[in-house]
Amino acid sequence: MRIRGVDRRTIQLGEGARSVEILDQTRLPFEVAFRELATLADAAEAIASMRVRGAPLIGVAAAYGLWLALRAEASDAALDAACKELLATRPTAVNLAAALARMRAVVLPLAPGARAAAALREASRMADEDVATNRAIGGHGLALLRPAAGRRGAGEPVQVLTHCNAGALATVDLGTALAPVYLAHDEGLRVHVWVSETRPRNQGAGLTAFELAEHGVPHTVVADNAAGHLLQRGRVDLCLVGTDRTTAAGDVCNKIGTYLKALAARASEVPFYVAAPSSSIDWALADAAAIPIEERDAQEQACVAGRADDGRLLRVRVQPEASPAANPAFDVTPAGLVTALVTERGVCAASAAGLLALFPERGEARVP
Amino acid sequence: MRIRGVDRRTIQLGEGARSVEILDQTRLPFEVAFRELATLADAAEAIASMRVRGAPLIGVAAAYGLWLALRAEASDAALDAACKELLATRPTAVNLAAALARMRAVVLPLAPGARAAAALREASRMADEDVATNRAIGGHGLALLRPAAGRRGAGEPVQVLTHCNAGALATVDLGTALAPVYLAHDEGLRVHVWVSETRPRNQGAGLTAFELAEHGVPHTVVADNAAGHLLQRGRVDLCLVGTDRTTAAGDVCNKIGTYLKALAARASEVPFYVAAPSSSIDWALADAAAIPIEERDAQEQACVAGRADDGRLLRVRVQPEASPAANPAFDVTPAGLVTALVTERGVCAASAAGLLALFPERGEARVP
Repeated sequence: MRIRGVDRRTIQLGEGARSVEILDQTRLPFEVAFRELATLADAAEAIASMRVRGAPLIGVAAAYGLWLALRAEASDAALDAACKELLATRPTAVNLAAALARMRAVVLPLAPGARAAAALREASRMADEDVATNRAIGGHGLALLRPAAGRRGAGEPVQVLTHCNAGALATVDLGTALAPVYLAHDEGLRVHVWVSETRPRNQGAGLTAFELAEHGVPHTVVADNAAGHLLQRGRVDLCLVGTDRTTAAGDVCNKIGTYLKALAARASEVPFYVAAPSSSIDWALADAAAIPIEERDAQEQACVAGRADDGRLLRVRVQPEASPAANPAFDVTPAGLVTALVTERGVCAASAAGLLALFPERGEARVP
Repeated sequence: MRIRGVDRRTIQLGEGARSVEILDQTRLPFEVAFRELATLADAAEAIASMRVRGAPLIGVAAAYGLWLALRAEASDAALDAACKELLATRPTAVNLAAALARMRAVVLPLAPGARAAAALREASRMADEDVATNRAIGGHGLALLRPAAGRRGAGEPVQVLTHCNAGALATVDLGTALAPVYLAHDEGLRVHVWVSETRPRNQGAGLTAFELAEHGVPHTVVADNAAGHLLQRGRVDLCLVGTDRTTAAGDVCNKIGTYLKALAARASEVPFYVAAPSSSIDWALADAAAIPIEERDAQEQACVAGRADDGRLLRVRVQPEASPAANPAFDVTPAGLVTALVTERGVCAASAAGLLALFPERGEARVP
């Protein structure tokens, strides 16, 4: 991603590969601050306090964190303790557990003296894989954007609507839903992105807008409420969102509010695409209604974080003290509302058959 | 409405009928402050700075403002000047122009010496009419709520979802969409209201939550994004919203985001009712697509007003300085998504035929 004109990753090795450098996302969009992680404790703190966030990025940060831990001490006991400490930082993040399991499987068979170097190699490989996955999704998504180019007249941008942040900041680089946008922009295809604010945590207004602005992609922030109106009045060519969890049947569990956009896209006959890296697909899950929806702290809903006129970053309360709030974090978009899933292997129908056509090994695995 | 335990109107005559007393809505929900309007200038300032807001309330405030003006000077020139000053306070408010036209028609034929007293009588009549209209809507809406009572089990509340503020604070008393809720609550029928925050101006979180809390009606504030999820998971029995402008065909132009809720209600087969006083019906308008949608100041979207930890009321910016914002204020919900309109004359289908059955004089007027 581009930050202050320089291409870099959200997480990368520091000078001489002696530490890990992250963009501190808690300061965005108002301050660009990098932070050096030199120890296990640094990495755990960065994940727990959401200096890094987004499922793919959390996984890679934990992998690098394990390297930092093993560099200090590489015994079996130290490995176990480090995995436990990192796993506790975000208990519900699936990628975190998966990344740590992978790292552990690689280093555990090795002699302690060889573990740190192997961990560094594996963590870097995971980071590279994430970028490659996103680049592949970007290429497949770009093919969906191209037909919309010029439909509004010569030189008119393709109008994309997105929700939350499924961009570079949620990954190591490029993002999932935003990868096609960056690739389009970079090859000269004009794109404009409607950025849905994404209350209560405002990842759209704060993060998606930030990274689009840094990259120079034209965009406009709107209230979550505005999506239906924009679609109804023909101001959107296609919707492109991410997914936190995709069922084997193609249902999409993503940030709260995604479902409303899918309904409005369908009503206006606008394509609704979901960028779904295979890591988001839960092959064991067929029934989306069974997905428990995380209910987060009501304070996130009752208050809004931002920058005051005097420059201070603070939170203001927007509802009476006497009024309770609820804060469901995700919703489910039924597969029937999803025009197609965009995976690293290609574009497919949001259905069991569509997914299995791209990932046939998942079907074979089920044959007894 | 109940405020701090006392039943009163949002606008009412002060002690000895020497002035008009309003609840200053710019301080809500964090401060309850009343304000005395003693002059035309006071009334104009109160409307322009949105100390009073909501279409019906603005009309009545302007009517009282004209009384205050005529009390000071009642010449034709003074009458014209006062109408002009009041009309300029909120140029797009239809009720404002209608109220002033009605007041002017009453007082203009009178001798200057009789005008102030007549203006006071007419303004008070308009206030009483608004309350009567809302009470009638409340009664008709209550009949729609009753069948839902007990459906979830004995003693379980009826679950209502609303958007924006179509409550007492938008009117002289009771409100339109919230009138059935207050009547239900007061007669012992248990109701719980899901209050949609209503970005960008947060009239749900700030005003609807405030008045429900003051009245003791159980409620929960949620992000606008949460409506689809609540409906999908069966947590809403019916939706009840207001309307700024209703076409002769039954389409509803209301606060941005209303349309998304109507789509989600339809998808979950939950009734979507619109409280539509006849003053909201534009009999000359058949095509909702022709309604120009007000695009308000982007700053309303880029910033959020609230109370900081130190008690100060202030605004915080929630998006990068480099990112533009758009702020469409209303959207159109097609009649086909509206289960029924609730008018002061009764409940009807959201269609030309439905409306004309309740307002036959509007059909007759069209016959050449």
